[in-house]
Amino acid sequence: MPQLSAGQYMLVYNTFSLAIAAMLGSFVFFVLSRNLVGEKYRMSLILSSLVVGIAGYHYIRIFNSWDHAYTLMDGVANPTGTPFNDAYRYVDWLLTVPLLLAELVLVLRLPKKDGTPMLWKLVIAATAMILLGYPGEISSDMGTRFIWGTLSSIPFVYILYVLWIELGRSLPSQPEPVQKLVKNIRLLTLATWGFYPITYCLPYFGINPSDSVVGIQMGYAIADILAKCGYGVMIYNIAKLKTEADNAASAAA
Amino acid sequence: MPQLSAGQYMLVYNTFSLAIAAMLGSFVFFVLSRNLVGEKYRMSLILSSLVVGIAGYHYIRIFNSWDHAYTLMDGVANPTGTPFNDAYRYVDWLLTVPLLLAELVLVLRLPKKDGTPMLWKLVIAATAMILLGYPGEISSDMGTRFIWGTLSSIPFVYILYVLWIELGRSLPSQPEPVQKLVKNIRLLTLATWGFYPITYCLPYFGINPSDSVVGIQMGYAIADILAKCGYGVMIYNIAKLKTEADNAASAAA
Repeated sequence: MPQLSAGQYMLVYNTFSLAIAAMLGSFVFFVLSRNLVGEKYRMSLILSSLVVGIAGYHYIRIFNSWDHAYTLMDGVANPTGTPFNDAYRYVDWLLTVPLLLAELVLVLRLPKKDGTPMLWKLVIAATAMILLGYPGEISSDMGTRFIWGTLSSIPFVYILYVLWIELGRSLPSQPEPVQKLVKNIRLLTLATWGFYPITYCLPYFGINPSDSVVGIQMGYAIADILAKCGYGVMIYNIAKLKTEADNAASAAA
Repeated sequence: MPQLSAGQYMLVYNTFSLAIAAMLGSFVFFVLSRNLVGEKYRMSLILSSLVVGIAGYHYIRIFNSWDHAYTLMDGVANPTGTPFNDAYRYVDWLLTVPLLLAELVLVLRLPKKDGTPMLWKLVIAATAMILLGYPGEISSDMGTRFIWGTLSSIPFVYILYVLWIELGRSLPSQPEPVQKLVKNIRLLTLATWGFYPITYCLPYFGINPSDSVVGIQMGYAIADILAKCGYGVMIYNIAKLKTEADNAASAAA
């Protein structure tokens, strides 16, 4: 780990604390609000609560690991020699990214013959994406990082294909406002998930190691908050709209 | 404990953290999803939540014990002299393995005259299996390890007999998709529980002590995640299918 200024160290420290608060707050929100939507949409809210619960656990570990990796003295943060454990992020993503995709497919209540295979394709691609990224992340060799990063992008592009093309085909059967929300949630996915590879590539941009460390940690934390808490709130909105549409349909019948 | 490389030490460390996250995430899942199945299947989901809750507690202890057993310096993990406490696993299994078998028998809702004696036979055999394995696990004498390992296998084989032969007889009375799931869950049980004796036998395979320690700890952790979280999700699916079959039957009546 490179030496940091006290300001840089505290910026990351406080961002990690923000992430813990956001994840735990969202956990309470998803647990308590699940009964405000129709029973068939509750599984998506349960999965949202799992995602932010698991991420909250990992941010507590990440926060403590950061705390132990540096010692502050005279306005400078010096590495203690205890390495900062980046693996927590990958373990977190391994569990939460497939769950995030499952939330979206399940809340749409597609016919079983479309929904089940789509779910499996997304879960397998997400797992492959995370597993292929890790060997590059822990490598200090730029070539190795590049190879694994590229391999990891293949399932990422495939996920985008499934979300835009395959899931796109089922959109016309959804109520109008749900269609709009699904389009927004896809854009949020693209923007936040697209942020991870940019963060992953930061060491290539020739910036100095301390700015690179601060950029990577801040980038991952903010992307995580948007991709988990923000995404989950959008899933809640879809569930709420679909519940209202169901109620209107059964009142008309 | 043998000396490990930093990479070996961190691999086990991160796998233990993964196990904590998986157990706690599953705990939230089973607690929140129990109301999505019919009332008579809820006890199985409650028992699932107990199993992963108890295992989550033990993995926090196991993680801390591992952390205290080694000190990382210059890319090498040296034993601190504080012994790693393997007993946590056996205490965990003593509580959770009978509960796992109870989950399966209870979710099937067998007639009381069949279900109750089957439950008792499985619980007693599971307890005997764990208790007989422990004296071998803590022994460094290969002969002692072999004797207790063999004794422990007798109730294991008996459990397989009850699941395949006795429980097999009641299968035709279950709805078609449930029969398939029960067969899958038995195979998962055989595959994951069969993994424990293989892990137990690792010291016999003539591999060096550091690889053996890493293999044992990773093997037990991955088997625990599959045999508790994965198994519990399959029990949830059985409960869900049986709830749907009950609803269809009462709608038809």
